[in-house]
Amino acid sequence: MFISFEGPEGSGKTSQIRLLAAFLREQGCGVTVTREPGGTRIGDQIRTCLHDVANQEMVPTAEFLLYSASRAQLVGELIRPTLAAGGVVLCDRYADSSLAYQGYGRGLDLQDLLTITAIATGGLKPDLTFLLDLDVERGLARRRLGGEEMNRLDLESVRFHERVRAGYHALAAQEPHRWRLVNADRPVEEVQADLQQVVNDTILSRCPK
Amino acid sequence: MFISFEGPEGSGKTSQIRLLAAFLREQGCGVTVTREPGGTRIGDQIRTCLHDVANQEMVPTAEFLLYSASRAQLVGELIRPTLAAGGVVLCDRYADSSLAYQGYGRGLDLQDLLTITAIATGGLKPDLTFLLDLDVERGLARRRLGGEEMNRLDLESVRFHERVRAGYHALAAQEPHRWRLVNADRPVEEVQADLQQVVNDTILSRCPK
Repeated sequence: MFISFEGPEGSGKTSQIRLLAAFLREQGCGVTVTREPGGTRIGDQIRTCLHDVANQEMVPTAEFLLYSASRAQLVGELIRPTLAAGGVVLCDRYADSSLAYQGYGRGLDLQDLLTITAIATGGLKPDLTFLLDLDVERGLARRRLGGEEMNRLDLESVRFHERVRAGYHALAAQEPHRWRLVNADRPVEEVQADLQQVVNDTILSRCPK
Repeated sequence: MFISFEGPEGSGKTSQIRLLAAFLREQGCGVTVTREPGGTRIGDQIRTCLHDVANQEMVPTAEFLLYSASRAQLVGELIRPTLAAGGVVLCDRYADSSLAYQGYGRGLDLQDLLTITAIATGGLKPDLTFLLDLDVERGLARRRLGGEEMNRLDLESVRFHERVRAGYHALAAQEPHRWRLVNADRPVEEVQADLQQVVNDTILSRCPK
């Protein structure tokens, strides 16, 4: 089982993934938690380049190809071997992030991005994708309050982040069987209860007890 | 005018480019010399990741996407603006290196590589490509003697480098109008004389005097 988590920075993905991993482990599932960009030694080198606020001159196509390189490494080195061994993978961002940020956000051609993504991942898609949906201004404010360092994409305009959010909604509408929209502007426990409910209904029956 | 230089490490590309740049400048051409991977600040960060001999676990698709990211940055930031301003670009390696090394060398699907390369470069191809051709063992020996640090690709097997060389020949055969094969197993001056002859015949008439 491969579950990805999408949504803006500040939507609480990291906390929700940690709680859901603990829940799944209690149910007897073998769980691997990872993230994009990064998740591997080489992917973390790429992440450093992508998030560095000094890299302002990065051209959008290069940015997309760097995310795709990190993704290809993650799929080949970690996700496919884990799935082949029967494990559950929880991934903080996956290809939909590139479609939302570089496609809808930056205006790169979506068909080009889909073509490259299919090659980078060998066609691997999540079985289930949670969209932790949140008003853009609320997400940015939470991000600032969180005390984490702002990365290169956090510093984009509110209008950019609005396009990203609209992109996520469009992607979810195209594949409703894969996506679950979750209102992330609620207490952590309430959001987590929704995720556990979905997982109970769709995934848990397939884990060994 | 956009001229790329291909061939194995140890074929003398760097020296030949330096000499040809000086020759072109004497003729009144504005010349920009660059290289792949790298050639930009962001590209050099990608180069470090690609050449690091510690990155042995890099999957071939990720490797290709990293070269493509560096290339997209180089085209967008340096090559297109230079060509638009009427300059001559001499580039030490370009997309043909990826076709030869990741396609013929590593066995990635050539059509996939061509598709991604067209997106990464916006379809930009060199006007002229020199293949500095050299026996594989001779090239590796020269590389060791040169005292430069061996990078991750230098450490590949002789058989890998044989496939790369055969790949270059196949690529040159497909686009004979763009490629010029040059025997690089000769003194630097002789090789340079051949390059200057080709440039005299094809490029110089287009430079301002």
